[in-house]
Amino acid sequence: MELEFLGTGAGVPSKSRNVSSVALKMLDERNEVWLFDVGEATQHQILKTAIRPRKITKIFISHLHGDHIFGLPGLLSSRSNQGGEAPLEIYGPVGIRDFVETSLNVTGSRPNYHIKYIELKNGGEIFNDKTFKVEAGKLKHRITCFGYRVTEKPRVGELQVDKLKEYNIPNGPIFGQLKAGKTVKLEDGTTLNGNDFIGPDKPSKVVTIISDTRYTPEIDRLSQNADVIVHESTFSNSDKKMAYNYFHSTATSAAEVASKAHAKGLLLTHISARYTGKNALTLQKEAQKIFKNTRIVNDFDIYEVPFTEKRG
Amino acid sequence: MELEFLGTGAGVPSKSRNVSSVALKMLDERNEVWLFDVGEATQHQILKTAIRPRKITKIFISHLHGDHIFGLPGLLSSRSNQGGEAPLEIYGPVGIRDFVETSLNVTGSRPNYHIKYIELKNGGEIFNDKTFKVEAGKLKHRITCFGYRVTEKPRVGELQVDKLKEYNIPNGPIFGQLKAGKTVKLEDGTTLNGNDFIGPDKPSKVVTIISDTRYTPEIDRLSQNADVIVHESTFSNSDKKMAYNYFHSTATSAAEVASKAHAKGLLLTHISARYTGKNALTLQKEAQKIFKNTRIVNDFDIYEVPFTEKRG
Repeated sequence: MELEFLGTGAGVPSKSRNVSSVALKMLDERNEVWLFDVGEATQHQILKTAIRPRKITKIFISHLHGDHIFGLPGLLSSRSNQGGEAPLEIYGPVGIRDFVETSLNVTGSRPNYHIKYIELKNGGEIFNDKTFKVEAGKLKHRITCFGYRVTEKPRVGELQVDKLKEYNIPNGPIFGQLKAGKTVKLEDGTTLNGNDFIGPDKPSKVVTIISDTRYTPEIDRLSQNADVIVHESTFSNSDKKMAYNYFHSTATSAAEVASKAHAKGLLLTHISARYTGKNALTLQKEAQKIFKNTRIVNDFDIYEVPFTEKRG
Repeated sequence: MELEFLGTGAGVPSKSRNVSSVALKMLDERNEVWLFDVGEATQHQILKTAIRPRKITKIFISHLHGDHIFGLPGLLSSRSNQGGEAPLEIYGPVGIRDFVETSLNVTGSRPNYHIKYIELKNGGEIFNDKTFKVEAGKLKHRITCFGYRVTEKPRVGELQVDKLKEYNIPNGPIFGQLKAGKTVKLEDGTTLNGNDFIGPDKPSKVVTIISDTRYTPEIDRLSQNADVIVHESTFSNSDKKMAYNYFHSTATSAAEVASKAHAKGLLLTHISARYTGKNALTLQKEAQKIFKNTRIVNDFDIYEVPFTEKRG
């Protein structure tokens, strides 16, 4: 799993940061890409990456402010033009369907794929399949806004082929049965239990995405033990009154969340245009005093989940 | 008057050409900028120019395909954030109001300025004041689409101050009265008629904008004697069947229009992504065989109205 940041600015696009969007790339896990928010020109940003729009299968919208959704109609149309045929799900607050459908209807766009809308009124589990589950939680912004927690299911370990060598098992279905944890009787009468030959569970991962919000305890719930928390950090702690008044967070409050949650890493995004160049790094330093493994992200940054602290 | 091209591609954005938008800069004439079409990320393109969003007072939409309108909600919101308070007019086919209002309502955006919508059902004169008039004409695209003809009113010449020297007129209101064409009696009894001291009318200009369309005679009417015709040229003449089937124009058909219209210059835009790099220049060469003063435009090109042929 990787996070690729497509827009890391707040409110309006600037020359250095586009408006909000982040891609969760799960190519090994699901051969899919999920997007969190789609600000205007997200499709333009994607043109500069290796992401293929047809691989985007789920889009999670935090809230209905323009800097988080105005890129959606264009992206959906272009995904269709570029041969995307797989169905797509859009999760978000009530109203997202009206916005997308009006935009597509007015322009006479009929994508080549089905769009399923999952409009959220409250938090809770919103998706669950064999390999992943997603929970939403209500944040505290000027309008209804959701944070998301993506949890990978425990992944069964590899079959330890080395340990099986002494049994001279012929190539064929027996390996598959053992890998599935079944008990198998060999020709010489030996009985083997697959579970004895499967390695430890591969580590499963948790990614939490917290967009526009003041601090609220729901953030802690969504962030608990996360491998990576992506947290908005519109302001510095020296502007914390402004952050409160505009229903936003500071680098300090994001770091406090990561520390309490025992997270492995914290990525700060949604950076106000008032912090440019080296000034933006002060947000990172401010957070690192509380939570060391923090990075402020830039457009097109890619982070593995979990990412490890840089040296030096 | 200058034309600045913000997006010169067709259908979907590419790395080299954004989707449609062109600015008509009338800073000397009206201290205003008018936009023709607003594809997604037009506001991002504007960030790289000297255009101030608050100077944009009129937006003319040709038709309701996404590559011509998806940048509108973001631009309108940012114009407000950046201190734009002057009222703004949006002209376009029926439906443009629904799209913009839904987008602004869903996102809770309330611009700091009044937006007046002028939804067009038919062509004809759509704007007329002291200095400019605008006519719309129905083109022939898959959906309702309008071309626009912008005509500057004749501009009164300058007061020829040199010719007045011998009358020893004191500084003050008399110059203003003469400039207004009034008759003035001087202290020594001499009578002067302002009209005798005003130079020839300054040339007034005509700009015609023809977006997505097959050839239709209405284009000729809108283009007659234009100083500059901006004409879509999605395809080359070798792909003219495709152009016809998709309701688009070729470089050749655009040049035929310019020639018949006795225009001064032709600018080709809305270039399909199939013509990249030097390939795009073949469209220009194809048109120049019929109408010499033709240029294919790129994003961020600026042309004076009228522009003069380059040497060599």
